[in-house]
Amino acid sequence: MEIDQEIRGIALAARSASRVLAAVRSGVKDQALEEMARSLGEQSDEILSENSKDIDAGKKKGLGPALLDRLLLTPERIEGMVKSLDEVRNLPDPVGEITRMWTRPNGLVIGRMRIPLGVIGIIYEARPNVTVEAASLCLKSGNAVILRGGSEAIYTNRKLGQILAGAAGQAGIPDAAVQVISRTEHEAVDILLAQDEYIDVIIPRGGEDLIRKVVELSRIPVLKHYKGTCHVFVDAGADLDKAFDICFNAKVQRPGVCNAMETLLVHKDIAREFLPEMATRFREARVELRGCDRARQIIPDMKPAEERDWFAEYLDLILAVRIVDNLEQGIEHIRKYGSDHTDAIVTEDYSNAQRFLREVNSSSVMVNASTRFSDGFQYGLGAEIGISTTRLHAYGPMGLEELVTTKFIVLGSGQTRES
Amino acid sequence: MEIDQEIRGIALAARSASRVLAAVRSGVKDQALEEMARSLGEQSDEILSENSKDIDAGKKKGLGPALLDRLLLTPERIEGMVKSLDEVRNLPDPVGEITRMWTRPNGLVIGRMRIPLGVIGIIYEARPNVTVEAASLCLKSGNAVILRGGSEAIYTNRKLGQILAGAAGQAGIPDAAVQVISRTEHEAVDILLAQDEYIDVIIPRGGEDLIRKVVELSRIPVLKHYKGTCHVFVDAGADLDKAFDICFNAKVQRPGVCNAMETLLVHKDIAREFLPEMATRFREARVELRGCDRARQIIPDMKPAEERDWFAEYLDLILAVRIVDNLEQGIEHIRKYGSDHTDAIVTEDYSNAQRFLREVNSSSVMVNASTRFSDGFQYGLGAEIGISTTRLHAYGPMGLEELVTTKFIVLGSGQTRES
Repeated sequence: MEIDQEIRGIALAARSASRVLAAVRSGVKDQALEEMARSLGEQSDEILSENSKDIDAGKKKGLGPALLDRLLLTPERIEGMVKSLDEVRNLPDPVGEITRMWTRPNGLVIGRMRIPLGVIGIIYEARPNVTVEAASLCLKSGNAVILRGGSEAIYTNRKLGQILAGAAGQAGIPDAAVQVISRTEHEAVDILLAQDEYIDVIIPRGGEDLIRKVVELSRIPVLKHYKGTCHVFVDAGADLDKAFDICFNAKVQRPGVCNAMETLLVHKDIAREFLPEMATRFREARVELRGCDRARQIIPDMKPAEERDWFAEYLDLILAVRIVDNLEQGIEHIRKYGSDHTDAIVTEDYSNAQRFLREVNSSSVMVNASTRFSDGFQYGLGAEIGISTTRLHAYGPMGLEELVTTKFIVLGSGQTRES
Repeated sequence: MEIDQEIRGIALAARSASRVLAAVRSGVKDQALEEMARSLGEQSDEILSENSKDIDAGKKKGLGPALLDRLLLTPERIEGMVKSLDEVRNLPDPVGEITRMWTRPNGLVIGRMRIPLGVIGIIYEARPNVTVEAASLCLKSGNAVILRGGSEAIYTNRKLGQILAGAAGQAGIPDAAVQVISRTEHEAVDILLAQDEYIDVIIPRGGEDLIRKVVELSRIPVLKHYKGTCHVFVDAGADLDKAFDICFNAKVQRPGVCNAMETLLVHKDIAREFLPEMATRFREARVELRGCDRARQIIPDMKPAEERDWFAEYLDLILAVRIVDNLEQGIEHIRKYGSDHTDAIVTEDYSNAQRFLREVNSSSVMVNASTRFSDGFQYGLGAEIGISTTRLHAYGPMGLEELVTTKFIVLGSGQTRES
């Protein structure tokens, strides 16, 4: 079949499955999720064998060890997928929930009821577990999903898609509720992103380049974040022990992820007390520091930071360090260089904590906590389909609630309008 | 100045005003709204004199009486604007509201706090009262606004913009928080819609052609509805008196608006009892009926409805009428031909009412009430900046809550993440 015919067909089938899925009961969706978990477990040998084709192809193509590791499935990792399906099944169904209800003077009862968004397209890179996680979250929230993973994982994803769609079918849900695009041509993405008639939202997951490409091409709204240039501001009134622990954790515990700290801002009045010991701890963890002039007066062996360092998302053991005069300058720095992802203040000063919380409008704003907590699971959302740093519809980690919208329901007893 | 330089300058100034405005206290915003109301009242003669220039120009251009009436300001209409400013001032400020707060097992307190969207662009047609209403709602919700009204109202809108920005300035808010585009070239809209770096959302208000053009051109997300093809389904179990009143009200009370009924669906088992009297009442109100074959067997003097009638938004005293076999067929018709605006069922049957509420996913779904209630004021939102029929961010009438988003706030006491 022609590729654009095929992709359009997938989108159309998803739209029509989404209509059925929107009206399906929680119990049926949970049955599908249970069936998915069972099938994944039962067919783990087949999955591993398809996965080994991807791994072999990846080795031939010369993929690096990090990428190969992301691609690789093991019995334990399949077990992890099964567990994540069980966890999603156990979350409350957001669909049909009435979030509020009130009565008007004329007796009309007005309510807001949660309903699915419709059809969700997920565009992602190597990790095959995204296939399972995204499919289960979309299904639980009553949305049909179209999955387009990286071409490196195509054998694995095809197999997973087959299993997931088959399990949905077993529970009586149209199997087009979960579809994996099996064409590996880049063109497939372009065509997918033009189906604004059938697809309601696109969620890309991956590096900044992938996201920018998706945003550039898409005629469909995109929920996304480009990068996480996260800041910790150590205020003059900080508790130093908390500051050491939080900054160390935010940078070192897992430097390759979007909620790791990339720039440390330090109030000038505490810099001489705070920076030397902090620098020692970072040095022991092999963190490369790049500082402003004033920071380098205190820690002379720091590299000088350039303008581009303030914008950088290193995703590595590198940290930009800047000394600022006061809270205002710290907030101003975050506004100018930040990415609206996650920014934290360490302070015992009540007023400064309040000001930071009110005036920094990043999607996650923290007091006395590591930026690494910025995550749907850590926040207790029970799941995470991604993080949004644009303000429309969702801002911050997105869980099931961000995969639904609310309609108005109006319960009358014959009311008519007079003016 | 070059036009694209001018429009970019406006967008940039709005972005920078929005940063200030987001952190401004409620009291200051309310003071600005009070000042706006006072200035409008004081300068009503100047407004009327600018308005008469628009009216004169409109007459020369040969605008029809309906359009001229929409353009026209009178002392009473200015009084209405002043009153609307007072009403917006009295609404609760959505910014800073914490909608929820919960504690995690590690002691982290997570909350969701409402913050402004940023910069909102409003593109609209003739009515100058939109200038005042939209500006006040954006200001109250902490957003900077760029207003682009119809060229027919340019003198009036310029004057209103001057007054509103001046009043904001008096209260200490940057006057770029409210800007009216004074260039009348069509090109200005194209340039405005390309400023996705500075403008967060576009809300177009007007006819379907305007909206389609905005959506086509915009690189910025658009909150909109194209049209309202609203249905009333009279079920077999309907209370006939309620059905007569609701259908009559939904069609006749104000036929030219988007929440008026355009198609009447009737269950076959009640059609012979219901349609003759209903048709008589419509005939007395000079409503032209266009029916399906079965409806015309009952009311032979109906015109035959064609396929395009089921899609039509007449905005006039015309009504399409169709007899359906059952609730399913009624819902199917609404899905196929509807516009996701407002659809109602008239029934005394509990199960059918519940099914209709759950399975019709239009932005407003009603039982035993006139579709004419689909409106932010009628729902008790206190205001309405427009209606959205796309599901992302807002669905249905949009009030102040739809002009804000929520960020996550995290209150810690030194927590770090272990895994």
